[in-house]
Amino acid sequence: MLILVTNDDGVYSPGLKVLAKALKAVGDVWVVAPDKEQSAVAHSLTLHRPLLVEEIMEQVFAVNGTPTDCVNLAVNRLLPGMPDLVVSGINKGGNLGDDVTYSGTVSAALEAAIMGLPAIAVSMVAREDFLFQTAADYAAKLAEAVLTDGLKRDTLLNVNVPNVAPDKINGVKITRQGRRIYSGSVLERIDPRGKKYYWIAGDIENWEEQPDADYAAVMQGFISVTPLKLDLTDYPSLDKIKNWES
Amino acid sequence: MLILVTNDDGVYSPGLKVLAKALKAVGDVWVVAPDKEQSAVAHSLTLHRPLLVEEIMEQVFAVNGTPTDCVNLAVNRLLPGMPDLVVSGINKGGNLGDDVTYSGTVSAALEAAIMGLPAIAVSMVAREDFLFQTAADYAAKLAEAVLTDGLKRDTLLNVNVPNVAPDKINGVKITRQGRRIYSGSVLERIDPRGKKYYWIAGDIENWEEQPDADYAAVMQGFISVTPLKLDLTDYPSLDKIKNWES
Repeated sequence: MLILVTNDDGVYSPGLKVLAKALKAVGDVWVVAPDKEQSAVAHSLTLHRPLLVEEIMEQVFAVNGTPTDCVNLAVNRLLPGMPDLVVSGINKGGNLGDDVTYSGTVSAALEAAIMGLPAIAVSMVAREDFLFQTAADYAAKLAEAVLTDGLKRDTLLNVNVPNVAPDKINGVKITRQGRRIYSGSVLERIDPRGKKYYWIAGDIENWEEQPDADYAAVMQGFISVTPLKLDLTDYPSLDKIKNWES
Repeated sequence: MLILVTNDDGVYSPGLKVLAKALKAVGDVWVVAPDKEQSAVAHSLTLHRPLLVEEIMEQVFAVNGTPTDCVNLAVNRLLPGMPDLVVSGINKGGNLGDDVTYSGTVSAALEAAIMGLPAIAVSMVAREDFLFQTAADYAAKLAEAVLTDGLKRDTLLNVNVPNVAPDKINGVKITRQGRRIYSGSVLERIDPRGKKYYWIAGDIENWEEQPDADYAAVMQGFISVTPLKLDLTDYPSLDKIKNWES
């Protein structure tokens, strides 16, 4: 089994190394990842400049681009064949709720799903002192399940892991994508020449009460697995809007 | 009615100017857009550096960031109040099928939806010689409908317009998101010093046969309106994956 591992924290991220090592028990692991951190790049694709690739060790490539670029280059050029599975991570930080749309980690898995490949995104819900082994152990188990049982076409799995030791995990919950209560803020500062500039400060962590959502599962000490799909159509809205047709 | 207009082609794009002008018949228009082209940036958010804003004329701001940054700055700092509607576009090029996940234009509308605001993304399906007025006329009509009737929470509208004169449009179809047949390619080149580099060449336009999809509507000369939602959960997969639980 050929497994592509990528991430958005960069090829030198310890999360990626621990993940790749754990997946070696499951298949032939190839790593193609950004040469530096690419957080919050979402599903960006680099079209306006060429991409450089460096093979930093056997079956490990660094690309000066985004996670989505890495999946494209890996599948079309760098790997010996089509991967049987793409695993993205382990991200330093959760990708819960609406945050999945900003996430480079999830977008790499999304790109794989667009190519028709089974894909898993793995994130550690913490800000520091990451216990990556907890996520890596589970990712290897889940990878085996996906390789054995397959995933529905046009779906991917978004996995978020509480930052505790493996024996402190309460179990696994299959969840739906949660919903933040928007509370974004933008800070205003003055530069040395008197000109205003702004920092996007990000949200305060504030979530809607949804017991079956990803966020709730992680807060209760469970690993959260959310199946996501490519089709964003809101089918219930189709009829409402049809009444507006001219 | 306060209307925020943004895009990913940049504040000087003619598509944005035509759109803003048309929307002035509907409400008080404020423009906050990137200072240069930001295509395929997807839902990127700039967190690693501060953002600069220049008011290039009354109620028109240029930001050295992404479309998602622009919506954040507009809502949190630059506008006199919460917008009643956010309209993103008119993009030079279609945003159909899975391409919505790469699109800066659609992501600006997505960001607005995350904030709880009604939002519309407008794109012109062509590569050159854009007839923006066709899209602008319809966007103004649709904006009125949304302001009057509202949109379901956590949804946005993705509009794609055929590049023909207004009187050559066959009508409006409410559609679902189409699906490309993946055919991406990556070109390999050799630089003057003998080192390989790569270009992501993009897909050949090749779509699945889906008569009710966005792509089909535009090919038949209709304006396509697709309601998209923030929740990407694939609910039918929940049970299948629950069987894997440990």
